[in-house]
Amino acid sequence: MTELPLVSRYAKLLPPDEPDGPFLYATDHVVTWGDTSKVGYLYYSRLIEWQGHLRELFALDFLDEYVRMLLQGHLMLTQSLSCEYLREIDLGDTISERLAVSWVNGPRMLGDFTYHRATPSGEELVARGQQMWVNATPQGHPAPWPPSVLDTCRQLNIDVAEALTA
Amino acid sequence: MTELPLVSRYAKLLPPDEPDGPFLYATDHVVTWGDTSKVGYLYYSRLIEWQGHLRELFALDFLDEYVRMLLQGHLMLTQSLSCEYLREIDLGDTISERLAVSWVNGPRMLGDFTYHRATPSGEELVARGQQMWVNATPQGHPAPWPPSVLDTCRQLNIDVAEALTA
Amino acid sequence: MTELPLVSRYAKLLPPDEPDGPFLYATDHVVTWGDTSKVGYLYYSRLIEWQGHLRELFALDFLDEYVRMLLQGHLMLTQSLSCEYLREIDLGDTISERLAVSWVNGPRMLGDFTYHRATPSGEELVARGQQMWVNATPQGHPAPWPPSVLDTCRQLNIDVAEALTA
Amino acid sequence: MTELPLVSRYAKLLPPDEPDGPFLYATDHVVTWGDTSKVGYLYYSRLIEWQGHLRELFALDFLDEYVRMLLQGHLMLTQSLSCEYLREIDLGDTISERLAVSWVNGPRMLGDFTYHRATPSGEELVARGQQMWVNATPQGHPAPWPPSVLDTCRQLNIDVAEALTA
Repeated sequence: MTELPLVSRYAKLLPPDEPDGPFLYATDHVVTWGDTSKVGYLYYSRLIEWQGHLRELFALDFLDEYVRMLLQGHLMLTQSLSCEYLREIDLGDTISERLAVSWVNGPRMLGDFTYHRATPSGEELVARGQQMWVNATPQGHPAPWPPSVLDTCRQLNIDVAEALTA
Repeated sequence: MTELPLVSRYAKLLPPDEPDGPFLYATDHVVTWGDTSKVGYLYYSRLIEWQGHLRELFALDFLDEYVRMLLQGHLMLTQSLSCEYLREIDLGDTISERLAVSWVNGPRMLGDFTYHRATPSGEELVARGQQMWVNATPQGHPAPWPPSVLDTCRQLNIDVAEALTA
Repeated sequence: MTELPLVSRYAKLLPPDEPDGPFLYATDHVVTWGDTSKVGYLYYSRLIEWQGHLRELFALDFLDEYVRMLLQGHLMLTQSLSCEYLREIDLGDTISERLAVSWVNGPRMLGDFTYHRATPSGEELVARGQQMWVNATPQGHPAPWPPSVLDTCRQLNIDVAEALTA
Repeated sequence: MTELPLVSRYAKLLPPDEPDGPFLYATDHVVTWGDTSKVGYLYYSRLIEWQGHLRELFALDFLDEYVRMLLQGHLMLTQSLSCEYLREIDLGDTISERLAVSWVNGPRMLGDFTYHRATPSGEELVARGQQMWVNATPQGHPAPWPPSVLDTCRQLNIDVAEALTA
């Protein structure tokens, strides 16, 4: 499976890192002064904001029906997140941020984020993170992901074997 | 008129700068690394974010009924803003941000912001700004400010002579 | 003058709005949830942060020598800014942000920002703003812009008739 | 050990949660519109920005000598962070954010963050997080924490048994 299965409007789809892995959803960030602190490097919280921007571009790009549900009160809750900082990121760096949804399990979904700096000879991994999301009713009760979300996941080669069916 | 007319929960009320002027609503900010950029000083956009935080604390503090209207779809639109940067602001500075509503005129209200740095001998003005707000119906049509807002304005010695009455 | 005079790495150059006007430097923003507030629309301060991102991409793109000076302590100070909000901006909107430097005068430079929403039939102006910058020595004294900056300005058809020469 | 060992300028010191635990460094946040998203609740990344603000107030408050070292190029690197979101946080909520440094081990230091919402009957835990920091030379090499930092840690009842000595 090496073809890009869907057309993306807001970012790029990249082929899976591993043969059976999920497609990657990617966007570029150029680090400007406003992203840095007096220390001189990228301020750490910016990577977390970028996680939000990318996951939400993903929803706008691939999950039209789910976005409509969210606008009517349905909830996609952030349950937890983490981030590891491997190398300092500097002004002017171009960072490719990539999101791969690793799996859907019951009402939960795990997103893996990686951050790669463009270098003259290729790229290097500079940070990585995760977010765990829960699909919930407007009342806040965890619920199975809607079929339209699971359909998109399958097209992106995301493991939905443990997804509940409504 | 020198007495503080209302009890504030979230910030401080300060007496008017001039005898007939409006009371000032004030909060302190301590500048941390996350507020600065690689240049070494406060990043300029932070003052604009602080304008929002202070105006919204003001609403939560003094405009209970209006906040309820806003939560039901009523709109308080930001029509324009400006900011003048007079001196560089540095890490560790304590900045007193103050909001004075200068006047209400028809559906519009003008807020003046000043930023004062605490110094060993007193304080110095480091920046100032303005925001113009418009009260609007949920459909976005400009409308007179509700009586409860004008009552609070009068208590804070704000000029409402040109406010429309509904 | 309709040719694009320079190659841009980080954003797009657009032809002048008027025959003798400056070229426009432009980037797109897609509005995600993190850009909005509980009111439902784009939070006003985000446009001000975007001003910073675009001006700094511009510097990284066209002002290599000046960026090196800035990294050695030279200062480009934000003296003032303003923004007018013409229409509400919503989740999922694609906003083209454009920067045109209108003129250089002594140590000052004026940047005009416009924000255009993509619509099915074209685009509409949704906001506009300005920033005034001052070139300064590391000690904070206003100073003429370096020749390399003025050269770039001329290539972009920016009016530098009133620029001081060092 | 129940006395507050140091005077804090920027935030409050609270007694340890457990008899032998570290003192807590705490500040309050009132949630305003700018902290929320179209979903209606606090946007998740704001808690991560608050982590930075609190840790940096802590440094400004208790670590004068270390702050001077940081301003001269010494580095305190964020190695990793995490956050768990337990309950939705709403507009107008008052959130007490508390930082307890759990331990120092070699060049590393672990900070625990908790977020408590004020309720009519007391408070409730709404989120918690962690950050791991590494003390490093200006060249980026991990290094033992300076004695002045360890002294402050001891005064705050922080476990430094595994700290390296220089």
